[in-house]
Amino acid sequence: MNRRDFNRAMLAAAGGYAFAPHQASVTLRVNGKRIVDHLTALSEFGKNPQGGVSRVAYSEADRQGRDYVMGLMRAAALDVSIDAAGNIVGRRAGSDPALNPLLMGSHIDSVPEGGNYDGDVGSLSAIEVAQTLADNKLTTRHPLELIIFANEEGGTIGSHAISGELSERQLALVTTSGKTIRDGIKFIGGDPDKLASIRRKRGDIHAYLELHIEQGGILDTEKIKIGVVEGIVGIRQWEVRIEGFANHAGTTPMNQRRDAMLAAARFIEAVNRVVTSVPGRQVGTVGKIQALPGAYNVIPGKVVLGLELRDLDAAKVQMLYQRIREETARIAQSTGTTFDFTETNSIVPAPTDERIRKLIDQTAKTLGFTTKWMPSGAGHDAQEIARLGPVGMIFVPSVAGISHSPKEYSRSEDIANGANVLLHTMLKLDAAQLV
Amino acid sequence: MNRRDFNRAMLAAAGGYAFAPHQASVTLRVNGKRIVDHLTALSEFGKNPQGGVSRVAYSEADRQGRDYVMGLMRAAALDVSIDAAGNIVGRRAGSDPALNPLLMGSHIDSVPEGGNYDGDVGSLSAIEVAQTLADNKLTTRHPLELIIFANEEGGTIGSHAISGELSERQLALVTTSGKTIRDGIKFIGGDPDKLASIRRKRGDIHAYLELHIEQGGILDTEKIKIGVVEGIVGIRQWEVRIEGFANHAGTTPMNQRRDAMLAAARFIEAVNRVVTSVPGRQVGTVGKIQALPGAYNVIPGKVVLGLELRDLDAAKVQMLYQRIREETARIAQSTGTTFDFTETNSIVPAPTDERIRKLIDQTAKTLGFTTKWMPSGAGHDAQEIARLGPVGMIFVPSVAGISHSPKEYSRSEDIANGANVLLHTMLKLDAAQLV
Repeated sequence: MNRRDFNRAMLAAAGGYAFAPHQASVTLRVNGKRIVDHLTALSEFGKNPQGGVSRVAYSEADRQGRDYVMGLMRAAALDVSIDAAGNIVGRRAGSDPALNPLLMGSHIDSVPEGGNYDGDVGSLSAIEVAQTLADNKLTTRHPLELIIFANEEGGTIGSHAISGELSERQLALVTTSGKTIRDGIKFIGGDPDKLASIRRKRGDIHAYLELHIEQGGILDTEKIKIGVVEGIVGIRQWEVRIEGFANHAGTTPMNQRRDAMLAAARFIEAVNRVVTSVPGRQVGTVGKIQALPGAYNVIPGKVVLGLELRDLDAAKVQMLYQRIREETARIAQSTGTTFDFTETNSIVPAPTDERIRKLIDQTAKTLGFTTKWMPSGAGHDAQEIARLGPVGMIFVPSVAGISHSPKEYSRSEDIANGANVLLHTMLKLDAAQLV
Repeated sequence: MNRRDFNRAMLAAAGGYAFAPHQASVTLRVNGKRIVDHLTALSEFGKNPQGGVSRVAYSEADRQGRDYVMGLMRAAALDVSIDAAGNIVGRRAGSDPALNPLLMGSHIDSVPEGGNYDGDVGSLSAIEVAQTLADNKLTTRHPLELIIFANEEGGTIGSHAISGELSERQLALVTTSGKTIRDGIKFIGGDPDKLASIRRKRGDIHAYLELHIEQGGILDTEKIKIGVVEGIVGIRQWEVRIEGFANHAGTTPMNQRRDAMLAAARFIEAVNRVVTSVPGRQVGTVGKIQALPGAYNVIPGKVVLGLELRDLDAAKVQMLYQRIREETARIAQSTGTTFDFTETNSIVPAPTDERIRKLIDQTAKTLGFTTKWMPSGAGHDAQEIARLGPVGMIFVPSVAGISHSPKEYSRSEDIANGANVLLHTMLKLDAAQLV
């Protein structure tokens, strides 16, 4: 495809908003091998003997990994600093200093016994995009900001500090590192007493782009190269308490039981049935359960379990919850038990910007990649930054859908593809006027 | 009914074996109020402020309760001693010293936070029977032995010491009292080094009778006065391990999950379905469960649960188990999981003597009580003594089927009825020649 065709495709993709043609060649590409080399080098910090990595936020391994990444950022001609929340910020001037910054980013902290792709792929690809611009002596219109957000795995803490406010309660929370968030921020070079200075408000950014591994198996199963993220799903969690009547498992006939375990079994089955009864990508999970008193020879009188529902559409989650409650009423009746629900967590969905979705989709297709529009079932820093302005996310396949595991893996080719989509989407976004 | 009619009924009841007419009047009755008074007095030892009793074997409360009961036994003209296993034995001579002893008994130890009827009703009713004989200056043909078995709740330890052998491993077990069985036996006046001296062999007893509360709700629900126990059910227990694949509850689509929790739910439902799919009194219970890793946002990769099946017919338990295994294969297939079963406990059924069942049934009916033949879903000392000779068990109703609870309750009238059935069955058994 020649440059005129490319620009025409980009114009079509951008839908209703105007953008200026960009100077970058359509043949511009990132160095995929360099990203993989950097992934390999980064994997040394917190490496586990049995595979994978434990580079939890605010740990020594995290600090070492951050030092390594800051070196890469400086090499990519970024002006690197650590903000008050411990986020690593790499700045690159644009040709028009009056414009809002265009942000790219991700994270490099991991869960305990995690893998080497979650966060790392997006972080090192964004650095590679900056390196590619430097190598090709390209300057964007907007100032660029590349942010490696601190402590994503502990609850998108670094990005939340920018888009919202870390409460005193949050700062006092003890993290997996053993340090409180407050002490952890200090440990990595931030200043928890100056968090107000980094807070931004809606309209302060031009846009935010994040590349990430899917962490699910949809792209891998369907052999699709690029996921266009429609948003980060909302999450609601409930503690469900089922009360029956504990009794002797030998002397209580089957038809005289009020068995909380049987009620729980029917509930778990009903959750699965309700969630899969309507089309869509919604998920419902019962991940924890406790039965009391909990002996072979006693009919459980009480079961406590955890219900979680996720979808991009909060109304759909509510509808599923209502249907589950209706099933619950029937189960309670048939088992002589009672159900009590307490909502323990609620995160609203964070949709991505529709114009950016289209831009990612067209960019990917123009580069020759198949695409699929999909929600992100996992949380990301993008959901925090969505409060400040338009965001977009690009997914690359996770082999077998495995994540938060040493077995987490994404193919080098897929990573390079994602980085090239990130590069060209960023360049088109730079040319675009998002109002 | 006159005496001739009563004896004729007894003859009919006794079926194929011969027995001599007995001197006891058909109008002979126990003093029901005295039993209830004794139950009330016994309930003081280990009484819980919130109701019920914690008189666990080998505790100080147990020792005090035993002292009280030994006083009652001496008052009933029994020759009281403590055997090497700590069982309280009260002897009463018969008119023919060459005959084997006729045994009655039960226990007075309780589970922690138990009630005042389990064991106590049978123990105090047997003492009341002896008291009634004494009050009426009646002598049986067979020597009578009234045994208050030690540590029934901890695994029919006292009766097992008589009918079998306590292993060194058993003697070293720490009981709920905090003492080992060995030390507990010493604490209540036994001698664990002389257990061999109390062991008996098959044919050493004429018969054994035990009155007990049902501990289930069948008699209460059906408003039947006397349960004729067909035997003590066999019990088999399995640890069931279900392996799926732990994964992110947000990013893993419903159709790509290998959810061990969903498999467990279907298993629990299948156990209930299989057990209730055939007529009979069999029971099946899943009383314990553990899901790993056990978080709201992780699909469980592993579930471990406990399966228990009970029935009087070991072949039926095996059949149910096989059917459950067949269901399991289907569930494993539909959920992408694997199931592994480890049998952790197996107790063979102990049927009661059919002639004694008929004798109890006819005695009860002659006394004007409705009867129902039924298995005992719970274990009893009778299952141990069944190894030595013919045994029979009489059940009286448990209100609402509640047992092992402070709410355990049996009506005074029902207890008196049971004690009268015990008295007259014992007298007829004394007259009978069981070969």
